[in-house]
Amino acid sequence: MNKINEYPSTVKCTHEQNGYPCFIPAQRILNLIGKKWSIQIINVLSNGKKVRYKDLRELLQRGWKKNKISDATLSARLTELTEEGILIREIHTEIPPKVEYSLSEKGEGLSESLQSLIDWTIKVCHE
Amino acid sequence: MNKINEYPSTVKCTHEQNGYPCFIPAQRILNLIGKKWSIQIINVLSNGKKVRYKDLRELLQRGWKKNKISDATLSARLTELTEEGILIREIHTEIPPKVEYSLSEKGEGLSESLQSLIDWTIKVCHE
Repeated sequence: MNKINEYPSTVKCTHEQNGYPCFIPAQRILNLIGKKWSIQIINVLSNGKKVRYKDLRELLQRGWKKNKISDATLSARLTELTEEGILIREIHTEIPPKVEYSLSEKGEGLSESLQSLIDWTIKVCHE
Repeated sequence: MNKINEYPSTVKCTHEQNGYPCFIPAQRILNLIGKKWSIQIINVLSNGKKVRYKDLRELLQRGWKKNKISDATLSARLTELTEEGILIREIHTEIPPKVEYSLSEKGEGLSESLQSLIDWTIKVCHE
């Protein structure tokens, strides 16, 4: 994880200070989802979808053709989002082994609360 | 600006592609507001406030005591947010010259659309 989280997970949130909201969790999440491909991954997995690594990669390629995603970037994002508890990584012990990704309950909550920001950015861009 | 915008402003938004939303503007904004102190600056200036550099710095120090903001960081964030059209920088030609920052209409829209995400992160953190 190292540089991803400017505020490590062990930093306890101190709630309000003098009427100022605590922004540590918002900062952590924004920092993570501000990275390339995070929102696309969350979008592709939203509404309870369970997708294998290979298929996820294909969906991302199909949806956003102009900037191809590399395996290194996709793996990094998946690891970070899983460590943050946003994604669930399920390993099925088959031959060959099957790995599936889906949004956790936290991830679905994030996806919903992120929607108004995404709607706004798209609206502003197209005005 | 350089590294801030992984997608330079000249990239035209291509709207939907095969039913996938265009995330270029969301990506740009998230990348910017995921940086240290961006959301605190937006919070302090929200609801039509106009604040001088010195006072802004003091408000940030007072609200979030545990992580002091440096002049270099505050200047960098103010420049980036102004270049993105989120902040307005007004220079009053007095002696000594007075510089005030406020949210633009775009900035107020961002602040509002960001609220549900911030509420969610705070709720999740305190659960």
